[in-house]
Amino acid sequence: MTVRALDDLETPAVVVDLPTVRANIERFQMHADGAGLAARPHIKTHKLPQIARLQIEAGAVGITCQKVSEAEAMVDGLPTVGDVMITYNVIGRAKVARLASLAQRVRLSVVADNETVVAGLSEGFAGAPEPLRVLVECDTGGQRCGVPSPEAACDLAIAIGNAPALVFDGLMTYPAAGGAERAADFLRAAKSRIEAAGIPVPRVTSGGSPDIWTAATHGIVTEYRPGTYVYNDRSLVARGVAGLDDCALTVLATVVSVPTANRAIIDAGSKVLTSDLLGLTGHGAVLGRPDLTIDQLSEEHGRIVSSGNIGLKVGDRIRIVPNHACVVTNMVDAVHVVLESGQVERWPVAARGKVI
Amino acid sequence: MTVRALDDLETPAVVVDLPTVRANIERFQMHADGAGLAARPHIKTHKLPQIARLQIEAGAVGITCQKVSEAEAMVDGLPTVGDVMITYNVIGRAKVARLASLAQRVRLSVVADNETVVAGLSEGFAGAPEPLRVLVECDTGGQRCGVPSPEAACDLAIAIGNAPALVFDGLMTYPAAGGAERAADFLRAAKSRIEAAGIPVPRVTSGGSPDIWTAATHGIVTEYRPGTYVYNDRSLVARGVAGLDDCALTVLATVVSVPTANRAIIDAGSKVLTSDLLGLTGHGAVLGRPDLTIDQLSEEHGRIVSSGNIGLKVGDRIRIVPNHACVVTNMVDAVHVVLESGQVERWPVAARGKVI
Repeated sequence: MTVRALDDLETPAVVVDLPTVRANIERFQMHADGAGLAARPHIKTHKLPQIARLQIEAGAVGITCQKVSEAEAMVDGLPTVGDVMITYNVIGRAKVARLASLAQRVRLSVVADNETVVAGLSEGFAGAPEPLRVLVECDTGGQRCGVPSPEAACDLAIAIGNAPALVFDGLMTYPAAGGAERAADFLRAAKSRIEAAGIPVPRVTSGGSPDIWTAATHGIVTEYRPGTYVYNDRSLVARGVAGLDDCALTVLATVVSVPTANRAIIDAGSKVLTSDLLGLTGHGAVLGRPDLTIDQLSEEHGRIVSSGNIGLKVGDRIRIVPNHACVVTNMVDAVHVVLESGQVERWPVAARGKVI
Repeated sequence: MTVRALDDLETPAVVVDLPTVRANIERFQMHADGAGLAARPHIKTHKLPQIARLQIEAGAVGITCQKVSEAEAMVDGLPTVGDVMITYNVIGRAKVARLASLAQRVRLSVVADNETVVAGLSEGFAGAPEPLRVLVECDTGGQRCGVPSPEAACDLAIAIGNAPALVFDGLMTYPAAGGAERAADFLRAAKSRIEAAGIPVPRVTSGGSPDIWTAATHGIVTEYRPGTYVYNDRSLVARGVAGLDDCALTVLATVVSVPTANRAIIDAGSKVLTSDLLGLTGHGAVLGRPDLTIDQLSEEHGRIVSSGNIGLKVGDRIRIVPNHACVVTNMVDAVHVVLESGQVERWPVAARGKVI
């Protein structure tokens, strides 16, 4: 469905500016090429096969997904994607069976940080036409998933190598923001140890948009997996990683009430903007109005306050750069994409809500 | 689709215990009946026609919705619902046209807190078979939408009464938690003033689950609109409004990693539990394990920590009472409903994502 212009959209609406998306993709790809890093963008930000296609066309070696159902939706929408990594411990027979089906359609890799996951993958891939590629997830400072030490990484690499139907494919980490150096030290030590055990380490993959412009091989990393860079958001602007002009995703909202001289209410609440703060104050940046603060969200209302006169009237439309772009695309069935021509298309968010 | 048992569900899954839902509905209906209040539950919590039906069958006079598309989804799923109030300033010709269609199918009422909204409604209902019922939304302390004073409420009631195709239907407020007395004072003053102007005030409607058990007419309120009470959640447990046993909605999650002795990672993150804190610390209550804290969410990971040994292993399943039930049902395409028989049915969340 093509509509004429943004003015025709009912609000709230999530709007994506395609020229900005293209520019963001090109800029990162150039950085990755210059740094000697393979690019493997995480699709969690856009959840759209159409944008994954742009990333691949620009030079990405493949895509990253977080859950099995998310990967299925992307491969359904872009059967030519070719190479998919799922950076998650996949657990349970039903999910591993889905993984095995997916492995018939693309070059698939997954991660593991423990032997229970390795055993489940090995069992599920028994009889598969080719072994499943499994990387060891390393906790290099993020304190989420990951083996805690280079020694543990080596032990798990050996376990993967010994497990039927699996093949060790390298090391994966999601470093803490600013933790690239520390991550590199961990990964270097793990790789040395694994190679000393006679096991090759085909790739070493790291990620994170906050450190995107300083992403480097550090003599060890071979691949980088940024997500948010494709749209950018207020959190990346606050970190100095992008400017507001680089933010491709905005929320279009309508002022529905101006109850007092310094307060206005919009029709976008936490069901569009989400409650994610990412360390910021307020729930988004109102474009063209740096004096305004979105100080409170309920599900369907956003409250905007100003220290002076709010300068908005009922029926006005505003555009908001959200704190966190990735979670906003998960709230809506479709985004409205502004093409180079200025026309607006409605694109269903194919991988929305794919948490399984 | 009926599945055998919870053990068969892939995780993360949102689970609703139907006997607890029935008990919560009955208990509130009894309270409302005893207090002389008409019950008009807000469906934003469950978003399910099936549960709206239970609320109506128990004695509710109708339902409350927040957005036009939400009301459409409910009426599509429960054409016999009869009476729907949309507690929102509806703005724009397209939306008002949808309202006019909806008014052909149910007894419809909406609210307004400003003359721009009143003018738009009046224009959109010109030529409608019967006038649209419009209540004046009053800001009785919540500082969101609402006219700021009883005088302003009276002025807007008069404007509604004078507007072609509209009829004034009463006063509506969503009071601040604990603000029922203050709200009653405002509403009483507004009603007196409006009646003194020769305009009848057919109803006065208030709401909010936090104050559900002290909800009373205060000699002025005629109708109450609770939402969360149907499921309850950790925020209401923290306020002493419900016990954990009264919480009908839980998130079933699987432990995917136990990287250290005092940390475990589950497969439910902010894409299921959401980042809503509602003033609480942590992101949900793990049933049976009050010693655990869900201290951090990323989109697909929840991090659980313990001051002692975490006592969980990879593959274990846990059930979590989320901080805020309403927003969780907006994250998933379906909930899994445990019937009285113990069987589990998959119910699509008909009004999920209806933000227009």
